[in-house]
Amino acid sequence: MIQSPRDTPLKDIRVIDLTRVLAGPYATLILGDLGAEVIKIERPGNGDDSRAFGPFLEGESLYFMSLNRNKKSVVLDLRLEKGKELFKKLVEVSDVVVENFRPGVMDKLGLGYDVLKKINSRIIYVACSGFGQTGPYRGLPAYDMIVQAMGGVMSITGERDGSPVRVGTSIGDITAGLFTAIGVFSALRARDLIGEGQMVDVGMMDCQVAILENAIVRYFATGEVPKPLGSRHPSIVPFEAFKSKDGYVVIAIGNDGFWSRFCSVINKPELACDSDFQTNDLRVENYTKLKPIIDQIVVQKTTDEWVQLLQTNGIPCCAINTIDKVFYNEQVKARDMIVEVEHPTAGKIKIPGIPIKLSNTPGSIRSPAPLYGQHTREVLCNLLEISTEDLEELNRQGVIQDYAMKCTLKD
Amino acid sequence: MIQSPRDTPLKDIRVIDLTRVLAGPYATLILGDLGAEVIKIERPGNGDDSRAFGPFLEGESLYFMSLNRNKKSVVLDLRLEKGKELFKKLVEVSDVVVENFRPGVMDKLGLGYDVLKKINSRIIYVACSGFGQTGPYRGLPAYDMIVQAMGGVMSITGERDGSPVRVGTSIGDITAGLFTAIGVFSALRARDLIGEGQMVDVGMMDCQVAILENAIVRYFATGEVPKPLGSRHPSIVPFEAFKSKDGYVVIAIGNDGFWSRFCSVINKPELACDSDFQTNDLRVENYTKLKPIIDQIVVQKTTDEWVQLLQTNGIPCCAINTIDKVFYNEQVKARDMIVEVEHPTAGKIKIPGIPIKLSNTPGSIRSPAPLYGQHTREVLCNLLEISTEDLEELNRQGVIQDYAMKCTLKD
Repeated sequence: MIQSPRDTPLKDIRVIDLTRVLAGPYATLILGDLGAEVIKIERPGNGDDSRAFGPFLEGESLYFMSLNRNKKSVVLDLRLEKGKELFKKLVEVSDVVVENFRPGVMDKLGLGYDVLKKINSRIIYVACSGFGQTGPYRGLPAYDMIVQAMGGVMSITGERDGSPVRVGTSIGDITAGLFTAIGVFSALRARDLIGEGQMVDVGMMDCQVAILENAIVRYFATGEVPKPLGSRHPSIVPFEAFKSKDGYVVIAIGNDGFWSRFCSVINKPELACDSDFQTNDLRVENYTKLKPIIDQIVVQKTTDEWVQLLQTNGIPCCAINTIDKVFYNEQVKARDMIVEVEHPTAGKIKIPGIPIKLSNTPGSIRSPAPLYGQHTREVLCNLLEISTEDLEELNRQGVIQDYAMKCTLKD
Repeated sequence: MIQSPRDTPLKDIRVIDLTRVLAGPYATLILGDLGAEVIKIERPGNGDDSRAFGPFLEGESLYFMSLNRNKKSVVLDLRLEKGKELFKKLVEVSDVVVENFRPGVMDKLGLGYDVLKKINSRIIYVACSGFGQTGPYRGLPAYDMIVQAMGGVMSITGERDGSPVRVGTSIGDITAGLFTAIGVFSALRARDLIGEGQMVDVGMMDCQVAILENAIVRYFATGEVPKPLGSRHPSIVPFEAFKSKDGYVVIAIGNDGFWSRFCSVINKPELACDSDFQTNDLRVENYTKLKPIIDQIVVQKTTDEWVQLLQTNGIPCCAINTIDKVFYNEQVKARDMIVEVEHPTAGKIKIPGIPIKLSNTPGSIRSPAPLYGQHTREVLCNLLEISTEDLEELNRQGVIQDYAMKCTLKD
């Protein structure tokens, strides 16, 4: 489903995107969805590392395709003088540069913010890195898993006394991508107010600290180190996944009203007025007494039976959906959260939709992920007015690579 | 550390904030950090539910305090006619309204977007809910845990064949808060372009689908349902937490270069050229053969010894930090990611800092979380020019509550 272009919040914004793999590409994915023109600069040879991540469809990485819709691909060698020149010309006519190299890489290339702001004082320079541009860890290598582990979330995720567990999706990268997108919007708005660009510095580990919710203040106030609690909520009971006859069901009794209704539904009205369980505070205190009582009841019906019974009575509950269930879920479908795009070589693929629903200027999916170098010629010709002869010369010298030229050679 | 007010990206923006607990307050926290004036409307009686969430310091909820800095508190009863009137007057002079009620609640109060946009066509109306404003699930109750379970992330988090595990921080709420903040920025930018406000609709479950990374495409392409893998990366090996002599150490060998360096460091150079382990693809294929070999080596040193040895050799690795370690971490400190604020009754508390570092117009923490009704008088007098007599009458009628008036009565 390729939507037609409409008014979008970033329709006047051009982003030069040097990012690879996940955190940076996730940020520019959001900017692209909201209308920005995103020009992805890929290095000659292999381009974005994630082009090599399986599974593949007709030779194209599905991982890459799910993160790079709405972007153009220009292959340009920033290590060569002529590549730097072209890059600087792009910066002149753009609004935002986003990179997720280790700190210092752009400076070494002679393309750091100090250089670029002299070329275009309105440019917004965005650096998304593992640990940020400052501090003793700035030079350390980082992956999602490293910042999940160092940032604390792994220490509070998992079974009680179990082995370490990674959050199953790369929230180290993804939350950094989200904060980075907010950083770009912030700097754009500031530019509208003060007329100048600035540098936006986002560190993945900082973002992990920012999403720890109450863990930091809880430790600060009590000195107790929070531990993993399986599926249990730290301060609400009952609020976890219980074993049913055929799997698990999440039951989330968020307040005392739900509790007394739940007790009626399970035919145990006496529990509601039991002096051990009347209030949430009491249920937290007497958790070990209450848990086996509920376990014994929940295991008697299937998950579907529980969901139907409890939902009918307005009690928060659900099954734990596996990805196939999410994929075919009627709400996900109704909200356009899985969309089909037609890729020129891979054909029809399904990727996540846009979760920000704007009534007047909705985001849109205007193009599938680009082929490697698909827009080299278009961008350089149209935007920088490089002649066809010069392009061919640059191509021969290895400064740029163009998909079409490659195809032509093949033919 | 209360910073002095400076140029901030949202310094001209006023937000009326009807949100409670987490997803909505997290969004307005970000807006406040970036300079917006956030006027939190709390209901008479108890205010934001999270004011009752422990632990407490001098009677103030630390949970509430960590999420509501930079906000003002106005207590206003939206069920009463006079409360609605005052609310509408606030909408007239504001830019954004954010709510996280279940869909339909604002319409029932007579304060839905259709009504508010007639009062102020530039108003941006933001609804952050469990399942969004449309679709068959729109009326269902939702908590973080419900959307974590329904949205798929729980099904891929946890030990292999283990019990269900919740992500230890409320990423269902928090990622929705982040997308909501981006939605606000988008609508503000669109308003600058088209001159009108609009409605922003964010559903927590949609956001869960949007952060599933490659799980959706992986299922689409292969038909295989992804499972929890403990701390293991699905397609890179070795890339997980290994047992050390005194705990665990995360070792993240992201490419073949790191692999051969790792093999030297552990004095097993022969592994690097072993035909079973030479490339990442081979290591993934022969995981069960390689894992015990590495296990046996890693268990011989302590976590600290490994981190020092591997870091010196530039190999990505780390300890799994518990929250106390994060709290005192030197990088976290260097990045101002835990800051102290002085609360008028609770005293000095430590809360997470701002992860978006802007060079020219940085975010700022200008005030601690408000006392319940602390700004009722200030906002209504200064912004709406209500006279002191009228205020006192409204207070008597229970339309508003003012912290200062309560204090006066007490004296």
